[in-house]
Amino acid sequence: MTHEIAVIPGDGIGSEVIPAAIEVLEALEVDFEFTEAEAGDHLLEAGREPLPEATEALAAEADATLFGAAGETAADVIIPLRAAVDSFVNVRPARTYPGVDAVKSETDLVFLRENTEGVYAGHEDDLSENLSTLTRVVTDEAAERLAEYACEYAPEGFTIAHKANVMRKTDGRFRDAVARVAEENDVETDEVLIDALAMHLVLRPEEYDVIVTPNLAGDVLSDLAAGLVGGLGLLPSANVGPERALFEPVHGSAPDIAGEGIANPSATILSAAMLLDYLAEPEAAERVRTAVEATLEAGPRTPDLGGEGTTEDVTRAILSRL
Amino acid sequence: MTHEIAVIPGDGIGSEVIPAAIEVLEALEVDFEFTEAEAGDHLLEAGREPLPEATEALAAEADATLFGAAGETAADVIIPLRAAVDSFVNVRPARTYPGVDAVKSETDLVFLRENTEGVYAGHEDDLSENLSTLTRVVTDEAAERLAEYACEYAPEGFTIAHKANVMRKTDGRFRDAVARVAEENDVETDEVLIDALAMHLVLRPEEYDVIVTPNLAGDVLSDLAAGLVGGLGLLPSANVGPERALFEPVHGSAPDIAGEGIANPSATILSAAMLLDYLAEPEAAERVRTAVEATLEAGPRTPDLGGEGTTEDVTRAILSRL
Ligand SMILES: CC(C)[C@H](C(=O)O)[C@@H](O)C(=O)O
Ligand SMILES: CC(C)[C@H](C(=O)O)[C@@H](O)C(=O)O
Repeated sequence: MTHEIAVIPGDGIGSEVIPAAIEVLEALEVDFEFTEAEAGDHLLEAGREPLPEATEALAAEADATLFGAAGETAADVIIPLRAAVDSFVNVRPARTYPGVDAVKSETDLVFLRENTEGVYAGHEDDLSENLSTLTRVVTDEAAERLAEYACEYAPEGFTIAHKANVMRKTDGRFRDAVARVAEENDVETDEVLIDALAMHLVLRPEEYDVIVTPNLAGDVLSDLAAGLVGGLGLLPSANVGPERALFEPVHGSAPDIAGEGIANPSATILSAAMLLDYLAEPEAAERVRTAVEATLEAGPRTPDLGGEGTTEDVTRAILSRL
Repeated sequence: MTHEIAVIPGDGIGSEVIPAAIEVLEALEVDFEFTEAEAGDHLLEAGREPLPEATEALAAEADATLFGAAGETAADVIIPLRAAVDSFVNVRPARTYPGVDAVKSETDLVFLRENTEGVYAGHEDDLSENLSTLTRVVTDEAAERLAEYACEYAPEGFTIAHKANVMRKTDGRFRDAVARVAEENDVETDEVLIDALAMHLVLRPEEYDVIVTPNLAGDVLSDLAAGLVGGLGLLPSANVGPERALFEPVHGSAPDIAGEGIANPSATILSAAMLLDYLAEPEAAERVRTAVEATLEAGPRTPDLGGEGTTEDVTRAILSRL
């Protein structure tokens, strides 16, 4: 079976790390048909829509999408693309690797971030010249399908992060709905306030495992975890919907190093491994992960990890270890 | 001049750390009149309001208030108390101390947290059986007075944290208003997205100094910073209004150790030092800070810092070093 993959490099280093990941995917015994599409700042600068309809339609029809990096137009590009694949969960693993310096070497976390609502639903209004409001939306439906995913992903249990002591109705609803689904599925949960969690993760990340969070909290906490493991260059992610999914490194377009050929392709290649898992190609996924891990341990490494290797050097090394 | 101080121990370890701070204040050559008032879970359990009107009124009239710790009823106690003193900024310094293990030893930050609105304004509704909303409010007025305070506090410049790429109108308004006031006052600012900041603070906290943030972001980021410096036991805070202020440790009621006499009084005593600064007693403030620092370095230390000292031991040591 041929997997139809939409490929959207996006901005900045996106067009450096995406070709690296495609090379790795093409080196496997798996059939793909890649179709590339445009999105991002460079379109806006050329007087076009940052997210062309054709790009959105491609993602909405492909078996899976591989996305590179978003720039200034991120909110107009990646948020609608996550919606285009109807993804209700953003899966963000953050772990340390032998050979990579980490602030906290015992970190091995997965965030399951609600991916459709909270402040991202985005009902904002300027009610007067000097007052704006944003209406955060929380539904049982979104919390429940996130929780069902979490129960399958982490049958051994998970942590629910929230700020229901202040956002009583909204985060209260989120917490209650997730806990209820978990209980129905005989999955154990505990809960923690997001502020306390931010501190705990810095002090003792090893006490946590899978963390289910509202949308914005997941955004902030997963970047915090990127700090713990040594930087964004290592974090892959999957935006999973009922019928399709979109895979992207957690990092952005890194305008400071774009064009220099020194971007770390690991996060994107690890995102490609998540794509392989999603397409029920677990052996290929494992081969890719093992090759990335071996390369992180033995080098070459890009400058973000203290090395002097180029994107190309690292990609070659990963290919040779497949 | 006698300073009239409202004293509200609150819940849990509040009634252990507050007497420690009062002892320290009484040992100085400064005239105080302390009036104690009740608030917290224990009142609710006794069938009363967690925040009695008399307590709120006392805080609203005192020159300054010293608060201990909030428990389950935190949102009904400390949030209205912050409002009772009309505090528009929550000042939260987070720094490392010689002798105290820190995840990041170069941390020396101050958060200036907007203290009146954002999600804390708290307009929540259950719009249907399975959908709740929370309306976040951002006004120019609140951002401007926070910015004016920031310009006086940090004339050498500060960082504005926000998520205006997603919350365009609300955090956009916050960012723009703060930046505008800073420019009018010839104070330099830079800006950073709160998710990126969470990562940067874990990796390189030494690159930041004073950070101006919306309310909830400040809540999460200051707890993150508590993790960087070794825990909440060290973080004082000031809720400052135009005519009065309330001082409180950043930590909570710590029910796990309440009653054991081993709570770290440092955060509360450092909050008392901030109170002295506020009351224009800078020499007394400095004496207290120096004594706390010497004790953190030489001991005794409470169990949260790896020691075996009691609250009493640490308080005695601080008193002896005044
Ligand atoms: C670029 C931005 C819209 C995005 C988000 O907030 O989700 C990013 O921070 C992320 O986490 O992928
Ligand atoms: C207890 C809670 C209401 C409070 C807050 O969210 O402000 C606390 O987390 C804090 O930071 O002081």
